[in-house]
Amino acid sequence: MPNPTAAMLVIGDEILSGRTRDANMHYLAQELTKHGIDLKEVRIVSDDAPAIEAAVKALSQGYDHVFTSGGIGPTHDDITADCIARAFGAHIDVRDDARALLQAHYDQSGLELNEARLRMARIPDGAALIDNPVSTAPGFTLGNVHVMAGVPLVFQAMVASVLPTLTGGKPLLSQTLRVNRGEGDIAATLTAVAEEFGDVSIGCYPFQINGVFGANVVVRGTDGSRIDAVTTRLAKELGL
Amino acid sequence: MPNPTAAMLVIGDEILSGRTRDANMHYLAQELTKHGIDLKEVRIVSDDAPAIEAAVKALSQGYDHVFTSGGIGPTHDDITADCIARAFGAHIDVRDDARALLQAHYDQSGLELNEARLRMARIPDGAALIDNPVSTAPGFTLGNVHVMAGVPLVFQAMVASVLPTLTGGKPLLSQTLRVNRGEGDIAATLTAVAEEFGDVSIGCYPFQINGVFGANVVVRGTDGSRIDAVTTRLAKELGL
Repeated sequence: MPNPTAAMLVIGDEILSGRTRDANMHYLAQELTKHGIDLKEVRIVSDDAPAIEAAVKALSQGYDHVFTSGGIGPTHDDITADCIARAFGAHIDVRDDARALLQAHYDQSGLELNEARLRMARIPDGAALIDNPVSTAPGFTLGNVHVMAGVPLVFQAMVASVLPTLTGGKPLLSQTLRVNRGEGDIAATLTAVAEEFGDVSIGCYPFQINGVFGANVVVRGTDGSRIDAVTTRLAKELGL
Repeated sequence: MPNPTAAMLVIGDEILSGRTRDANMHYLAQELTKHGIDLKEVRIVSDDAPAIEAAVKALSQGYDHVFTSGGIGPTHDDITADCIARAFGAHIDVRDDARALLQAHYDQSGLELNEARLRMARIPDGAALIDNPVSTAPGFTLGNVHVMAGVPLVFQAMVASVLPTLTGGKPLLSQTLRVNRGEGDIAATLTAVAEEFGDVSIGCYPFQINGVFGANVVVRGTDGSRIDAVTTRLAKELGL
């Protein structure tokens, strides 16, 4: 059976303007790979309601899971929860279970659960809360969409809360051969081996360090013994 | 007149598997912002022809410019040029102008322009070549799509070749206020000021360092004096 598929939707003007470098995509990619869920597509859109809704709808229909990052805080530019609700035609308002979590948290820290903070308790009907052990305000899962915070520490904690609840497939395994020759020298060998072993993927990623050209050849698949076989074969053919 | 809009398409299994952390998106975002072109969306897809073609078509229709990264090398997994050609219904083959560039380059370095390397001279009819001062093999512009290499040094050189040929708008300017209070404390003030000044955007990006919560409030727009006015107003209202 093929692995489940996933897409990620990153929401944030600060990334598209180049102010902030996204860290969550790389983290999620690694975690999904370990869990046997194949990340097939990532989209980054701005804090714009129609753009968010359109992307959520498209990705939710196209993949088994969608993971979103960003836009669920207390300020006016945090519009993700409302957009997800609209994409699913779900009603959204402050929900008692989320409010209770926030109330307990702010009581303990001596802060007021004011109107802005209460926005973080806006959860669509039918959604399951995602635990946030870092700063309490929960994420949520609605349908196949997992809605999480953009702050990397919180995002990572939410991924840790969600992933164990999802059925994974076979982890994607890989081996890398570093070749100190240009891609053009080894391309024919890679093509021949790739055609012979159709069940593994062979990727070639060139690099240039101090004027020297080389390439990392990465063999990927879910069957460790096949990856070993292909890697051994490539090493022999490439004279490594 | 509003600024031209742009999207980016990153092509690469190695990014979706978490093996490599993309560097080109952040670089392009910063360059476009300086040039007055608004980056509105980024998509990352795998080395899969139908996925690449579908994304190119959608982004090419939705935005003034599309910039792609990755998949134009000499190996079997480099399929971007052919996908772009198909997306535009253009014929593609080894083109004489690109072949001449490569021939001169490999003659000089004493390497053979073999079949694999010749793949890098596959350029769609009607496309304009993008100069590659780093490693010669050119990118190309077809319609509103600018096709560039994935290796960061080469990508950056190609961006430097292309950007001056594009009409930019007003650079996006920004000022940042660092606030050592939680977002929930300042959200009401931000909302009020954002509603009063509709022509600038106010973003709020929380951070947590050593257990202390704070936020960077970023004021963005194309009119420096308006940004100054809003930043001064926010600083006063927030007691900074």
